[in-house]
Amino acid sequence: MARLIDQFQRLPGIGPRTAQRLALHLLNQPEDQVQQFADALLAARSQVGQCQSCFHLSADPLCEICSKPERNNGLICVVADSRDLLALERTREFKGQYHVLGGLISPMDGIGPELLHIKPLIERIAKDGISEVILALTPSVEGDTTSLYLARLMKPFCPVSRIAYGLPMGSELEYADEVTLSRALEGRRPMD
Amino acid sequence: MARLIDQFQRLPGIGPRTAQRLALHLLNQPEDQVQQFADALLAARSQVGQCQSCFHLSADPLCEICSKPERNNGLICVVADSRDLLALERTREFKGQYHVLGGLISPMDGIGPELLHIKPLIERIAKDGISEVILALTPSVEGDTTSLYLARLMKPFCPVSRIAYGLPMGSELEYADEVTLSRALEGRRPMD
Repeated sequence: MARLIDQFQRLPGIGPRTAQRLALHLLNQPEDQVQQFADALLAARSQVGQCQSCFHLSADPLCEICSKPERNNGLICVVADSRDLLALERTREFKGQYHVLGGLISPMDGIGPELLHIKPLIERIAKDGISEVILALTPSVEGDTTSLYLARLMKPFCPVSRIAYGLPMGSELEYADEVTLSRALEGRRPMD
Repeated sequence: MARLIDQFQRLPGIGPRTAQRLALHLLNQPEDQVQQFADALLAARSQVGQCQSCFHLSADPLCEICSKPERNNGLICVVADSRDLLALERTREFKGQYHVLGGLISPMDGIGPELLHIKPLIERIAKDGISEVILALTPSVEGDTTSLYLARLMKPFCPVSRIAYGLPMGSELEYADEVTLSRALEGRRPMD
């Protein structure tokens, strides 16, 4: 029992009290239910790998997005990890494909470009038919470093753009921080 | 005493308890201190008017910004009110002049374009020498409506741009709302 509570507690956002509640709940379930839970855990871990093309989580060699013929495969959106990809998918705006780097360049944490899926990205765009690469990395030191690094590498092959940084929807100018406002001014766009 | 508490309570962000504390504090001050406070109140109200050019708060006919010769008067940044102007000034990025509309177009609240300082803005830009107008309005229905309205009016005279809407600094893609992400994708810019 203590072992199970301990295991739950290792999950993000679950503290000792929640862990205890979850463990007690499971102990009250029929045994086959618990067995199914354990099976699902093991199956997920052993079956879910990475897409060979974009490195998104996938049970198959090619992920759902890469294998969809209706997605525009001339447009690649580069993200740090699968969570960011899922956030962009929720917008239902982007119809191209993705490339998951697996992190951001961060010399402070000892993460250099060689630890990320950058080489396969360059191989993808070196092939013909890529019309644009969109960098969708977080507005932070690591995100900026990685964006600049990638832009320099990829520019010989195709146009590289970066998502807009500025005021988020529903925000007030008055309460925006100085850096965000500076970027919003700097990134102003002509009105159509 | 009750009247003073009531007056304090009308100020934004001041509830009954704070109002009472402020009133009691003032009653314990020497009388000339209270007199100075009252004078400052009356003076501020009677002396601070609006800049004749940009409608920012100003004690003089021309505000501090409009009367500074080193500001680029070919570049006008349009904001809803003086608080937004002050937020942009804090960035120390913008070296042009401003125009304070005094609000945003909001048919729901009965605020039409005629209630805002739009006519003086058009008169300003109709004069020669304006190289660009930057619309810095909040990303909201009212802000969008006002931006579109102004852009249509001003385009015959000079280029009109709009500050960037997208991810704010230090934010995570994963937690950004869908509309902000859509705008960030839509507003992507080529990497230099």
